[in-house]
Amino acid sequence: MEIDGMLLTILGISAGILILTGWIEQIYKGYKTKSLKDISKFLMIFISAGAILWLIYGVIVSDVFIIGTNITAIVLMMIVLAMKRNYDRLSKTNQI
Amino acid sequence: MEIDGMLLTILGISAGILILTGWIEQIYKGYKTKSLKDISKFLMIFISAGAILWLIYGVIVSDVFIIGTNITAIVLMMIVLAMKRNYDRLSKTNQI
Repeated sequence: MEIDGMLLTILGISAGILILTGWIEQIYKGYKTKSLKDISKFLMIFISAGAILWLIYGVIVSDVFIIGTNITAIVLMMIVLAMKRNYDRLSKTNQI
Repeated sequence: MEIDGMLLTILGISAGILILTGWIEQIYKGYKTKSLKDISKFLMIFISAGAILWLIYGVIVSDVFIIGTNITAIVLMMIVLAMKRNYDRLSKTNQI
């Protein structure tokens, strides 16, 4: 049981770190290219809504990894969404 | 306890559906515009790796929603990644 607990901890932390690394890489790529037009804003809206539900789920089952990963993911996705809005607007202004 | 179980079921299914709808929308958008160059391939690689760990986590804690959501998410992300490779290659060919 002790090993299972440790394994779950390692799995939960690693999974969280990997998912967050992915979003940070996306933020970095978007920042570098100043373009996020190929990313669907609905991708981020739907995933964020899903993450909010996962967050509630995590609170009910008292799972700290589900809670932590989802809070951080929501924040990072909001950043990507805000960047996308900015870059999309800039790109439209430049085309006029 | 019964209500909690039902609430968890509804939360788990809804969260899963939202996340999957987000990726399907992304696939649709990519298919329409034939361009996914703004999406970081590392986003999908890292999130898929994270989802594989979540999957193992879900198997250990016997959580059918974690398992289902992550399997489907991995499949959808692999589709986006394959489409991105294709479109990126096409776009390079066109530029030459």
